[in-house]
Amino acid sequence: MNVVVQDIERADADVVAALGECGVATVHEAQGRTGLLATYLRPIYAGARMAASAITISLPPADNWMVHVAIEQVRPGDALVLAPTSPSDAGYFGDLLAVSMRARGGVGLVSDGGVRDVRDLTEMGFPVWSRAIGAQGTVKETLGSVNVPVVCAGELIEPGDVVVADDDGVCVVRRAEAGEVLEKARARIAKEEETRRRLASGELGLDVYGMRGRLEEKGLEYV
Amino acid sequence: MNVVVQDIERADADVVAALGECGVATVHEAQGRTGLLATYLRPIYAGARMAASAITISLPPADNWMVHVAIEQVRPGDALVLAPTSPSDAGYFGDLLAVSMRARGGVGLVSDGGVRDVRDLTEMGFPVWSRAIGAQGTVKETLGSVNVPVVCAGELIEPGDVVVADDDGVCVVRRAEAGEVLEKARARIAKEEETRRRLASGELGLDVYGMRGRLEEKGLEYV
Amino acid sequence: MNVVVQDIERADADVVAALGECGVATVHEAQGRTGLLATYLRPIYAGARMAASAITISLPPADNWMVHVAIEQVRPGDALVLAPTSPSDAGYFGDLLAVSMRARGGVGLVSDGGVRDVRDLTEMGFPVWSRAIGAQGTVKETLGSVNVPVVCAGELIEPGDVVVADDDGVCVVRRAEAGEVLEKARARIAKEEETRRRLASGELGLDVYGMRGRLEEKGLEYV
Amino acid sequence: MNVVVQDIERADADVVAALGECGVATVHEAQGRTGLLATYLRPIYAGARMAASAITISLPPADNWMVHVAIEQVRPGDALVLAPTSPSDAGYFGDLLAVSMRARGGVGLVSDGGVRDVRDLTEMGFPVWSRAIGAQGTVKETLGSVNVPVVCAGELIEPGDVVVADDDGVCVVRRAEAGEVLEKARARIAKEEETRRRLASGELGLDVYGMRGRLEEKGLEYV
Amino acid sequence: MNVVVQDIERADADVVAALGECGVATVHEAQGRTGLLATYLRPIYAGARMAASAITISLPPADNWMVHVAIEQVRPGDALVLAPTSPSDAGYFGDLLAVSMRARGGVGLVSDGGVRDVRDLTEMGFPVWSRAIGAQGTVKETLGSVNVPVVCAGELIEPGDVVVADDDGVCVVRRAEAGEVLEKARARIAKEEETRRRLASGELGLDVYGMRGRLEEKGLEYV
Amino acid sequence: MNVVVQDIERADADVVAALGECGVATVHEAQGRTGLLATYLRPIYAGARMAASAITISLPPADNWMVHVAIEQVRPGDALVLAPTSPSDAGYFGDLLAVSMRARGGVGLVSDGGVRDVRDLTEMGFPVWSRAIGAQGTVKETLGSVNVPVVCAGELIEPGDVVVADDDGVCVVRRAEAGEVLEKARARIAKEEETRRRLASGELGLDVYGMRGRLEEKGLEYV
Repeated sequence: MNVVVQDIERADADVVAALGECGVATVHEAQGRTGLLATYLRPIYAGARMAASAITISLPPADNWMVHVAIEQVRPGDALVLAPTSPSDAGYFGDLLAVSMRARGGVGLVSDGGVRDVRDLTEMGFPVWSRAIGAQGTVKETLGSVNVPVVCAGELIEPGDVVVADDDGVCVVRRAEAGEVLEKARARIAKEEETRRRLASGELGLDVYGMRGRLEEKGLEYV
Repeated sequence: MNVVVQDIERADADVVAALGECGVATVHEAQGRTGLLATYLRPIYAGARMAASAITISLPPADNWMVHVAIEQVRPGDALVLAPTSPSDAGYFGDLLAVSMRARGGVGLVSDGGVRDVRDLTEMGFPVWSRAIGAQGTVKETLGSVNVPVVCAGELIEPGDVVVADDDGVCVVRRAEAGEVLEKARARIAKEEETRRRLASGELGLDVYGMRGRLEEKGLEYV
Repeated sequence: MNVVVQDIERADADVVAALGECGVATVHEAQGRTGLLATYLRPIYAGARMAASAITISLPPADNWMVHVAIEQVRPGDALVLAPTSPSDAGYFGDLLAVSMRARGGVGLVSDGGVRDVRDLTEMGFPVWSRAIGAQGTVKETLGSVNVPVVCAGELIEPGDVVVADDDGVCVVRRAEAGEVLEKARARIAKEEETRRRLASGELGLDVYGMRGRLEEKGLEYV
Repeated sequence: MNVVVQDIERADADVVAALGECGVATVHEAQGRTGLLATYLRPIYAGARMAASAITISLPPADNWMVHVAIEQVRPGDALVLAPTSPSDAGYFGDLLAVSMRARGGVGLVSDGGVRDVRDLTEMGFPVWSRAIGAQGTVKETLGSVNVPVVCAGELIEPGDVVVADDDGVCVVRRAEAGEVLEKARARIAKEEETRRRLASGELGLDVYGMRGRLEEKGLEYV
Repeated sequence: MNVVVQDIERADADVVAALGECGVATVHEAQGRTGLLATYLRPIYAGARMAASAITISLPPADNWMVHVAIEQVRPGDALVLAPTSPSDAGYFGDLLAVSMRARGGVGLVSDGGVRDVRDLTEMGFPVWSRAIGAQGTVKETLGSVNVPVVCAGELIEPGDVVVADDDGVCVVRRAEAGEVLEKARARIAKEEETRRRLASGELGLDVYGMRGRLEEKGLEYV
Repeated sequence: MNVVVQDIERADADVVAALGECGVATVHEAQGRTGLLATYLRPIYAGARMAASAITISLPPADNWMVHVAIEQVRPGDALVLAPTSPSDAGYFGDLLAVSMRARGGVGLVSDGGVRDVRDLTEMGFPVWSRAIGAQGTVKETLGSVNVPVVCAGELIEPGDVVVADDDGVCVVRRAEAGEVLEKARARIAKEEETRRRLASGELGLDVYGMRGRLEEKGLEYV
């Protein structure tokens, strides 16, 4: 029942990186306003930014044994996605694990639980998005699984999915859709540039987006 | 039923600015410990600071159509005050809207909902106090109202009221009382200077404020 | 019933300082994963760090009279530990009280309530861990007690206990156990150094900690 | 600054009673989906039901002095609406106060704080909607105000407004609009009767409300 | 992008019913402690109980248009599973929709949002598990999808999955695994009967489950 | 480090029972408004009522091994008090454990975690106050301690302390103070009887408690 899936597919590294440059809000919109994890996930420092392939971990509350197991599966460009089987704010991950991640090429962590040693992680520039910051120690007693589908902060994440994260939160992109989403995200950015220019010059969104007719139709009254 | 009130009165710009210099805690105290919005409103970056006239928006959860409508009503020195009709952490506002606000002279946002593009907003120095940071996209389908009285984070805010905000949170000052509150705030600051000097020199608050007699009277025992 | 205990014992100042250098996560682990306060206590600025002897305060919601009483009991190296008798996010403590604390040699605050003037406190470098940042003014009407055992953020704290706090949260160490905990914390740090070196070189935690056998025994399957 | 307003206007008693028969959901819809208090207010027993004129109370956290003051203002058919100046779950109200309310003709309580003695209140059939059930004792030290506008659970309530409450929560109706809202509520109920009959017979809402065309227009696809 | 999947497979009706008799805790254990929805989902009345095939709905916050669309897809023995795209406590469902569900043979609702008319629903014996009870009215403006995989209260639910719910909460069983889970659940119940008998006679779990050796081995000390 | 303390002292059984008859609110007041556990602890059914000697359990999140260990320590009239080392809503306790408790004379449970099988527990009339109702299965892997001081829902509870619980929540009385608190509670009840009679006859609390003078002195204005 407890498994470690060893050979997972990942999206193209360039596509992953490019999604990261687009940012969470744009990527989320580009894929039809889907994939956003719950807003209670917050970065441990301002300016944290990441795009990575997900190594998923299903594990018990306050037991981080599977994190050690998962790190062996990490390839350069991967991030851990940690989903406790019941809510927990324990400190599943700290600076030693980050050192180990770094040594394997791992780039970050999304934790639907706690994280600790945040000063060290911040100094290392190792980005983490978590439900809580908490130092509560964990045990290594109960198995979980690595690289199985998990629900993390309200979203389904499958191993190898792309996790995009920045100050706005975390968004998941299905592995197979990464290329298509990237295209749409880039199209959106291009279009926004023009909109930004017009808004900056003082034009109103009401006019740029042509909203006045529909507002009137719906019955909005100016008094 | 859905209206946009176009001509609202505002407090004197100098008074508004001066209230901002006094800060949230002082202004809140000066008006008799009233007007403070709920503590779940947090600034998107440390050091954010604002005093502005409120353009209020009542709007549905996850629908930001009315924000576009409201921006047309913004005059230099105004801030948007966003009140969803039921709790929401959607990303009602982002960098494009901030660009548009800036072009109109708008200075900030108080959102009893979410906000996104916080990295861009931070770089722009566009201050936002919000219930959540969230990238969830919004629709433009349902009307709301602009410049009607709203309850935002537990406080009544009327259009043209003064919104003072800093790292301590957000406080509303009734438009008509702005001048009087400013006077009291300044008096308070003057008095605090003297108190600060005495406390810094090692005097105790117990003596500065003459509390010992009343404590004894109430029955406090030293053991 | 309402008392101020004046002569409390404190741990050795050097031990207290050394515990602070070890940090919250290490100290918490060193004493058997105990003593951690709830994760909702957060520092008001990143990088805040403190180790201090606790002056405990039991006080009513939104009434900070006892804080003034407590400051008289502060000796150099002490911190206030504030425990309201029912949950509150009021602003019990601000910059004037910090000035007074500083004048007495006090070094920080742990508040299971609110705090205000956080910009000033940040500029002063006066560290605070609190449940909320809130400017709500308090009254001075109802007695509480100083230097009695309190429960703060879910942990029992006795006067003179050592409070260690950093970006990871807050941990309490019993006064009488401070020396022993320090030794264990130092041993742990020494051991972690070696582990860090090995992990940084690419060894896996699975091997460093010798976990493979037990994982197999428990039935973990690699697929 | 602390006042008791003694002569407030109330809505017509028959209108108030009739609004209560319509229920919260219907009344809320009838007045344009406004006036609903936050969902964290829950009745202390299933089946609680009330419509009453509001005696509003602004009072400090964990201090119920003003409740005693307010009861003197209660006339038959009134309910207390309790709004602490900062969040509190203290037990502001219990069976003795309910006995006193009953003796004055008071019919219930809406508390954006705590309530206690809920077994006794349930046995008395005295309905309460509150943020919390909590026995924490309160003091009688600090003034507040009675019959001033308050924000309770996110809604503005003015003295004499009609408070309608049942298992679905609490809704406020402006005093001056009570009659008009009642008419709309009754019209809504009449219309719903016909709809209920049709739905019960197996017709679909899609057809009863004629939604199919607009769904198609918006692009919904059946697969 | 917005679809209604019309032909979904369902588990065998007898199996579904039998899982309902086993109850949430037993089913959850029988399938390896998986499938439990978040504990914030609560039944609207004590004793509510249900097992049903899921008709899933992904829909916007405070917009219940898709509920009407979904009801057309309901077959006898189905329940609706409602998953807003961002958190909401709006009243998506009330007595009219329940009447319509009943007319189609629908048996209940799981809502990761609000529900209203709970008195009527209770009288009808129509069971609902929801995040909130709230009367906030919804609009019918924005499309969603019916019978697509959703995450509801932290668990993935696919159309046709079995939803088991009682006073303990809600558990999902994969459609294809329903039979196997039922067998395991029954085995568990059989075994528990014997255990119950032994415990009732005064034997200790320590002995019934043979725990003493392993406790000693782990180092538990009796003092 | 993990211990089971076997011989604990308990308060006199008659005193415990009598405290239960006084109820939570009265007992809490009688001991100076102390000892109340957090309001998030709720009974699993209305009308639940208990007074018992505490068998305390410190245990890991989602691991209920120590509950089995603790039951061996239960004597007639005891209740379990369960304190996870970090927050958890797992189902630590269910009907089998209740059967075992009953067989030992145990009378109830206070759980700063979850509980399950609440329908069975309700039918048994086995009262539980808990943070959550949740069916999440637990493991039996990690030791904790039995009959050590714990903090449960924000209050220190020592083994043998008296736990009084009813619809209003849970209150702890120190074992050594039980007799004295009972006396005060009874005095309070006697006094309340007279007050109740006067209030029921229409006298106001303002007069019964003689509050008018002090209100005037503080400056309350009637307008």
